[in-house]
Amino acid sequence: MKLNFKVRLDNLKGFPLNLTPPQVLVLGFALVILTGALLLMLPVSSRSGEATDFLTALFTATSAVCVTGLVVVDTGTYWSTFGQAVILGLIQIGGLGFMSMATFFFILMGRRIGLKERLIIQESLNQLRVAGVVRLVRAVLLFTFLTEGFFALVLSLRFYFDYGFPRCLWMGLFHAVSAFNNAGFDIIGGFRSLTGYVSDPVVTISITTLIILGGLGFATVIELFNYPRTRRLSLHTRLVLRVTAALIIGGTLVFGLLEWGHILRDLPLSGKILASYFQAVTPRTAGFNSVDIGHLNAATQFFIIILMFIGASPGSTGGGIKTTTFALLGITLWSLGRGKEDVELFRRRIPPWQVYKALSVALWSIFLVITVTLVLCITEGGNFLAVLFETVSAFGTVGLSMGITPHLSSAGRVAIILTMFAGRLGPLTLAYAFAQRRRRTGIRYPEEKIMVG
Amino acid sequence: MKLNFKVRLDNLKGFPLNLTPPQVLVLGFALVILTGALLLMLPVSSRSGEATDFLTALFTATSAVCVTGLVVVDTGTYWSTFGQAVILGLIQIGGLGFMSMATFFFILMGRRIGLKERLIIQESLNQLRVAGVVRLVRAVLLFTFLTEGFFALVLSLRFYFDYGFPRCLWMGLFHAVSAFNNAGFDIIGGFRSLTGYVSDPVVTISITTLIILGGLGFATVIELFNYPRTRRLSLHTRLVLRVTAALIIGGTLVFGLLEWGHILRDLPLSGKILASYFQAVTPRTAGFNSVDIGHLNAATQFFIIILMFIGASPGSTGGGIKTTTFALLGITLWSLGRGKEDVELFRRRIPPWQVYKALSVALWSIFLVITVTLVLCITEGGNFLAVLFETVSAFGTVGLSMGITPHLSSAGRVAIILTMFAGRLGPLTLAYAFAQRRRRTGIRYPEEKIMVG
Ligand SMILES: [K+]
Ligand SMILES: [K+]
Repeated sequence: MKLNFKVRLDNLKGFPLNLTPPQVLVLGFALVILTGALLLMLPVSSRSGEATDFLTALFTATSAVCVTGLVVVDTGTYWSTFGQAVILGLIQIGGLGFMSMATFFFILMGRRIGLKERLIIQESLNQLRVAGVVRLVRAVLLFTFLTEGFFALVLSLRFYFDYGFPRCLWMGLFHAVSAFNNAGFDIIGGFRSLTGYVSDPVVTISITTLIILGGLGFATVIELFNYPRTRRLSLHTRLVLRVTAALIIGGTLVFGLLEWGHILRDLPLSGKILASYFQAVTPRTAGFNSVDIGHLNAATQFFIIILMFIGASPGSTGGGIKTTTFALLGITLWSLGRGKEDVELFRRRIPPWQVYKALSVALWSIFLVITVTLVLCITEGGNFLAVLFETVSAFGTVGLSMGITPHLSSAGRVAIILTMFAGRLGPLTLAYAFAQRRRRTGIRYPEEKIMVG
Repeated sequence: MKLNFKVRLDNLKGFPLNLTPPQVLVLGFALVILTGALLLMLPVSSRSGEATDFLTALFTATSAVCVTGLVVVDTGTYWSTFGQAVILGLIQIGGLGFMSMATFFFILMGRRIGLKERLIIQESLNQLRVAGVVRLVRAVLLFTFLTEGFFALVLSLRFYFDYGFPRCLWMGLFHAVSAFNNAGFDIIGGFRSLTGYVSDPVVTISITTLIILGGLGFATVIELFNYPRTRRLSLHTRLVLRVTAALIIGGTLVFGLLEWGHILRDLPLSGKILASYFQAVTPRTAGFNSVDIGHLNAATQFFIIILMFIGASPGSTGGGIKTTTFALLGITLWSLGRGKEDVELFRRRIPPWQVYKALSVALWSIFLVITVTLVLCITEGGNFLAVLFETVSAFGTVGLSMGITPHLSSAGRVAIILTMFAGRLGPLTLAYAFAQRRRRTGIRYPEEKIMVG
């Protein structure tokens, strides 16, 4: 059982403190979060002008850097504009991955980017090849700032009617950046998210477009931009596009069917469609909501849990096990069930180690969700579905909630903080970061079978 | 990606109607269930002397043949002694696997058992080799009837004090057979299961011993019996014993910790220990209960769901994904997380196709549970945890319930019937049974990578 996808990490020597790229990522994220938490604790960060306790600040900073959007205090009313700006900065760093940000400053300063840095960027953007990662980062940054800027303007114009000038500019910028980075933070106030705009086509379509563009993965978006010239799409991009389209269309239909006579009842037809579409897009893994998630049917809430678990596409701002992992699992189960020898897709063979990786990502994730849910059942008690929803939302860095986040106990807050962190970095990156270096013993044990299943 | 474990099924030709062994098993189980349902519909089967509706009879027959124990009517008060005898017969057929029963009659009639029959027995008992399966069946039958007989006597003596003679004999026999086959049916009455005997050491220890012996798997038990002579245990048996012991000890501790001041509060110390032990053993996958499952903490109920999902050992009367699958998943995730190339256990290497099989069994099972839970959320609404509990209980052929079984809608009953059936046969057997025969195209597509996780 060759695990080639790991080997390259072992061949690396000489990082500062002898760290591997996964370790650099884990430490880097942790440092950015701690810095953010300290900034948020300052009196100037809160609207009341009082210092914020460490756990609340840490929860908010983790939620921002991990682009989750779960909040224990309302972003719009609790934090000052300075505090909100800190949160927005953390979202942008977390969304792009802090290595892309570092690269950005390296490029600005004209510094050369070495192989070690390129390898970390490769890990951070989940790329298959190290070649071209710096060019990729340039393109990513350009694409990010142009998209955010354009939609910030559109949203500012819309918010002008509700908030006037200059408040509308901050509202537009904040929500554009938050949506593109799949962060789900809002500054509307009162934990209301976008429920006030449930039937508004400008807000719905701007926000969902930002979410989808941010969630496709940077490499995919750039490949799409180059398509008119290259006339070729990789297997990866074709898979991402199909799965994303299927999940959005299927999600809209299922949400509409389940909630037509329930939460959508009093909306006009266009509102019903916009709300279904919005709630199908947002669980993967944006975290805005335009209807009250706590008042949906249990079946709809469970369906949203499934969408949150699947999440966005690899190398994007979104979380979850990722669309490609989900697709690979489906194809593998289908192939195994039919007794096929190869896992095939679009007339291509998927390498066995990728199938292994997909299976183990899924199972690590399920293991994590089950463990945290059990812990929260003990610390929070109460509504099981709400607890499961909260856990998957944190793991998938989604940020939707059935409403229990502000009422979490301290133990529950710590559990959710750790889950958001694990969910953003991914279980495999974490495992590699904490794994001891392998000792090559040279011993290979004889094979023996056991009965399974 | 070689899937050797499937290949042998393809080499088979010339079954009646050209059926493969998995197809024979699926059809055979279905026929036994239908026959049982028709018998239970007869007026003589019910205590009231009235005919029973088809869906109730089908639910009960499926629950009995799949040794699940979920019931929509109370076994002790609704069915006549004839009806209970039908149920007990179905349990025995289902527990041993109907092919072992057929073999039993073949042996009684002195008929020779051909290769085709041996291959079906092999599939039915989940054995790795076809050699010796008939000898295995002989040993299985002997072991089954001796164990059931011995504990039927012990339980009859205990029940004599509550029910007198001759009622105690039927009570003893019924519960011994039901426990050994991990069926979970009881004839105490009033859906009470064994809650009246929560602090009774004779009933607790007899029933749990039967459950454990029935759940280890026949091959393992026979290997243990031969151990004084052979002084050798296979990798499979060593794994089964360790995992079983760990789950029972761990389960007892966790149950005791979570419920000490709650459902166990008013019991004496010995009762607390017996009840914790009983409730740790029964989710895998017996289905008796000595405390009210519906009144446990949410955390305990979720913990029981996990135990039910893991289930018993392969080639036993129990269900679930099986102890070895669970262990293999744990070892695989551990190895992958540490970047190991081989999956190793007790200084033995596990063949990659077994790891694949374990991963796909787990994921098919999770897929099944999620789908059925979503369906039940729609048809039953209400308490999500109770619905998830019911689904996993049916899938794992456990039979524990938080109390919603008798209140299921018709659609819910059909969903649970199908889930019990799928859970007893196992997702892979079902998939193989319904898979079309593979056309060997000879085409092998080129390999291409995608980004995962
Ligand atoms: K989010
Ligand atoms: K059972």
